[in-house]
Amino acid sequence: MSMRIDLNSDLGESFGNYVFGNDEGILELVSSANIACGYHAGDHNVMQRTVNLAVQNGVGIGAHPGLPDLAGFGRRYIEVDPEDVYNMVVYQIGALRAFVDLKGAHIQHVKPHGALFNMAAKDRAVADAVARAVSDLDPSFILFGLAGSELVKAGKEQGLNVAEEVFADRAYQADGSLTSRTIAGAVLHDENVVIERAVRMVREGKVEAVDGTLVPVQADTICVHGDGAQALVFVKQLQEAFTQAGIEIKRVSDK
Amino acid sequence: MSMRIDLNSDLGESFGNYVFGNDEGILELVSSANIACGYHAGDHNVMQRTVNLAVQNGVGIGAHPGLPDLAGFGRRYIEVDPEDVYNMVVYQIGALRAFVDLKGAHIQHVKPHGALFNMAAKDRAVADAVARAVSDLDPSFILFGLAGSELVKAGKEQGLNVAEEVFADRAYQADGSLTSRTIAGAVLHDENVVIERAVRMVREGKVEAVDGTLVPVQADTICVHGDGAQALVFVKQLQEAFTQAGIEIKRVSDK
Amino acid sequence: MSMRIDLNSDLGESFGNYVFGNDEGILELVSSANIACGYHAGDHNVMQRTVNLAVQNGVGIGAHPGLPDLAGFGRRYIEVDPEDVYNMVVYQIGALRAFVDLKGAHIQHVKPHGALFNMAAKDRAVADAVARAVSDLDPSFILFGLAGSELVKAGKEQGLNVAEEVFADRAYQADGSLTSRTIAGAVLHDENVVIERAVRMVREGKVEAVDGTLVPVQADTICVHGDGAQALVFVKQLQEAFTQAGIEIKRVSDK
Amino acid sequence: MSMRIDLNSDLGESFGNYVFGNDEGILELVSSANIACGYHAGDHNVMQRTVNLAVQNGVGIGAHPGLPDLAGFGRRYIEVDPEDVYNMVVYQIGALRAFVDLKGAHIQHVKPHGALFNMAAKDRAVADAVARAVSDLDPSFILFGLAGSELVKAGKEQGLNVAEEVFADRAYQADGSLTSRTIAGAVLHDENVVIERAVRMVREGKVEAVDGTLVPVQADTICVHGDGAQALVFVKQLQEAFTQAGIEIKRVSDK
Repeated sequence: MSMRIDLNSDLGESFGNYVFGNDEGILELVSSANIACGYHAGDHNVMQRTVNLAVQNGVGIGAHPGLPDLAGFGRRYIEVDPEDVYNMVVYQIGALRAFVDLKGAHIQHVKPHGALFNMAAKDRAVADAVARAVSDLDPSFILFGLAGSELVKAGKEQGLNVAEEVFADRAYQADGSLTSRTIAGAVLHDENVVIERAVRMVREGKVEAVDGTLVPVQADTICVHGDGAQALVFVKQLQEAFTQAGIEIKRVSDK
Repeated sequence: MSMRIDLNSDLGESFGNYVFGNDEGILELVSSANIACGYHAGDHNVMQRTVNLAVQNGVGIGAHPGLPDLAGFGRRYIEVDPEDVYNMVVYQIGALRAFVDLKGAHIQHVKPHGALFNMAAKDRAVADAVARAVSDLDPSFILFGLAGSELVKAGKEQGLNVAEEVFADRAYQADGSLTSRTIAGAVLHDENVVIERAVRMVREGKVEAVDGTLVPVQADTICVHGDGAQALVFVKQLQEAFTQAGIEIKRVSDK
Repeated sequence: MSMRIDLNSDLGESFGNYVFGNDEGILELVSSANIACGYHAGDHNVMQRTVNLAVQNGVGIGAHPGLPDLAGFGRRYIEVDPEDVYNMVVYQIGALRAFVDLKGAHIQHVKPHGALFNMAAKDRAVADAVARAVSDLDPSFILFGLAGSELVKAGKEQGLNVAEEVFADRAYQADGSLTSRTIAGAVLHDENVVIERAVRMVREGKVEAVDGTLVPVQADTICVHGDGAQALVFVKQLQEAFTQAGIEIKRVSDK
Repeated sequence: MSMRIDLNSDLGESFGNYVFGNDEGILELVSSANIACGYHAGDHNVMQRTVNLAVQNGVGIGAHPGLPDLAGFGRRYIEVDPEDVYNMVVYQIGALRAFVDLKGAHIQHVKPHGALFNMAAKDRAVADAVARAVSDLDPSFILFGLAGSELVKAGKEQGLNVAEEVFADRAYQADGSLTSRTIAGAVLHDENVVIERAVRMVREGKVEAVDGTLVPVQADTICVHGDGAQALVFVKQLQEAFTQAGIEIKRVSDK
């Protein structure tokens, strides 16, 4: 079997008068789009436009539910109970699905955003709430979670198809968790290193942790950023590196 | 054919720590529930609870999309263009539909709320945007609009089933429009008068306007309020009056 | 010196169409009012009305800044850094002070609300941020904090006058901290017990902890609730009990 | 007496993760800054940074209160009553004043934003509410209003110092009002034309309306935009043109 990877990116994060990211450019490069649903970013107009663009580009459409925190862009931990998480995920997927339905398309996947993604990676009650919301709405949705995380386990237990996600530009701990962004060196900036790590994660299923040990990771999908001046250039380089390494870029729902 | 009327009420208008209305009580009395969708009132937790209660009571479930204005409870006019209206209606119906799906139920109707209801009654561009959003999402949804309004016309033109709504406690103008709430006497408080008008609107299809003329109205559904200490008592009296007048209370979707 | 206590209550927590609490009634009974500033509750219209009512009743006016979380009523922990805390406290005090200025009155005190109160009780960096914001704006403001907490220490270190607050209806741990609301028995419901504890805290400076030990507390001000059907009746009983015990109810700023 | 003009710009319009405008660059060029107060744009952190930058640059600091509408950037008309307007202006000025106080500085002026600016230009009740709020808080604040507008009249009647504002890049009607942005040609894009009009408005007190008539305008302050790639270049060109025409750029509060 040939090697493959899905490239996903967080999109539709503009809000009202505020423009964020280069959605048009990035949608030509990635295979899957995580579209904000109005809680941490995005609004109903941005969602419509982003869904339409994603459909035009044949990109796998994902709901990207977040905590209700526009001021914090959904990146701040908020104390929420599992039932609240369940309902906020249902609400946001439902809202996005309406726009997807209008185009005769289907939601491919669900990826929780920011703090909700991190909470679901470590806290099994949150992970279960997310996985149940996804499964109850439509068991054909693919759940994206940090490779090896509680969310991946919760999704599998719910019988969902799960895509394990890796981050080529983040420092890993020996246990497979991401080094917190509050720690120096958590984010890698050398693009050659990042690309090398990306290819290795897909080809060998391994990433070098901060202590030098090799950590096994399942790399089904990899996240690339759509904001920043160099975003498009980097994603193109990454694409080329994958191609040269014999790795095909395909959305997770493609056979 | 026997006479019939649908009793609808605005529900699910609590938000976070704020409780509004007596949803449990009113759901035992009405035939259709207009459930707030998080823009002018309601939140994802309130929506889940209200949908579940409505299903338990066998009440027709309606989406009640409003302007994004929690501070103004969706009652203030906001300058919005038709595309924005279209998208905000799609978003809110989609969010509510997800909770309804989870219970294996179906949305019966859509009724715009407050200022959006009033705008759609008079402004054909807004009316068309609402009607298109409803029709594009699911042409089986019944559209609620002020009897004789632009929204009713727009819905019919879209091929939707439309339920014309009357207000027994509001003063009517000779052209069939409601007297603005900013004018004294716009809301009638004598319950006997209100009940008498309600019965007459259903039996005779007529309501007496402020200038004494009789205005023809199509009364498919009538709105009753769920908040206020006397709300439940009044609704029970109204039910009895309908029964004595040989008018059956049935949700609009029932044959 | 005669014994004295300040009675404070959280007020001005209505929002838009949502009414919360019995502000008019409670303002006749308490000596100090903590007025919400629009982040966790309250809005500019509610603030104006509540300030005016507090001035009419001769009650000590306090700013009650909270986390920006209307949906959670400011009761949910949110991950905020100290600079953010400093700025949110400055903003909210400034907004309230404008309404107080309009009445020719002065802010007596500042009491952080809900999760911010709890965070400032335990986390010295948050406590310092709150205390600095208060002190930088006006060093004559009295800072309210949980008796014995980090916030009390931070306020004193900033040179602020500090009022230590006790809760008669909350279970205490042996270290003087409040038992978390998530633990059964955290809130006491027997009003006689609550009143007895209140009097004892003021007269003896002691409260019985959950393990039976007597914990020393400095009781400068005591919080009473303004919502709930029995709130006013209870506060009147508490007042009587204080009077019978020879304890005078005075706002903290009175000599 | 030599000719003079104040250059003002809307600043501090970023929000949370969203960056808007080039505040650092524009603050080196203008004489007065209108700082958003958290209702239509800005947040407490952005306000602190923007106030500090304005103080560092010796720029006149203005409160820029807007309608509570982040999604619409305060540009959409919302139905608000005069008391609501009064209170929202008090709240926002109070919040900004706190940050200004912290730097030992003073608010120079108040300029309503967007839809509130436009409503106050035409609707005398709104104009009076804004002018009273400003005057009640501090009668030394200078009120900015569209030249010749109801707001200018209301401010003068309140005894406020008023700065009449002109827009060099907007088409004027023969009655001195701005052509609505919804009409083609409402915004002028030829920079030479804009600069020529600006200089003429200051030197001659006249602007050519769309019908070719010359309309008298009092040009105390002129608005320049801080966003857009060419914003800084244009403002520099405008500065040079003023200098060559013998027009001094001074903040309105300077003698």
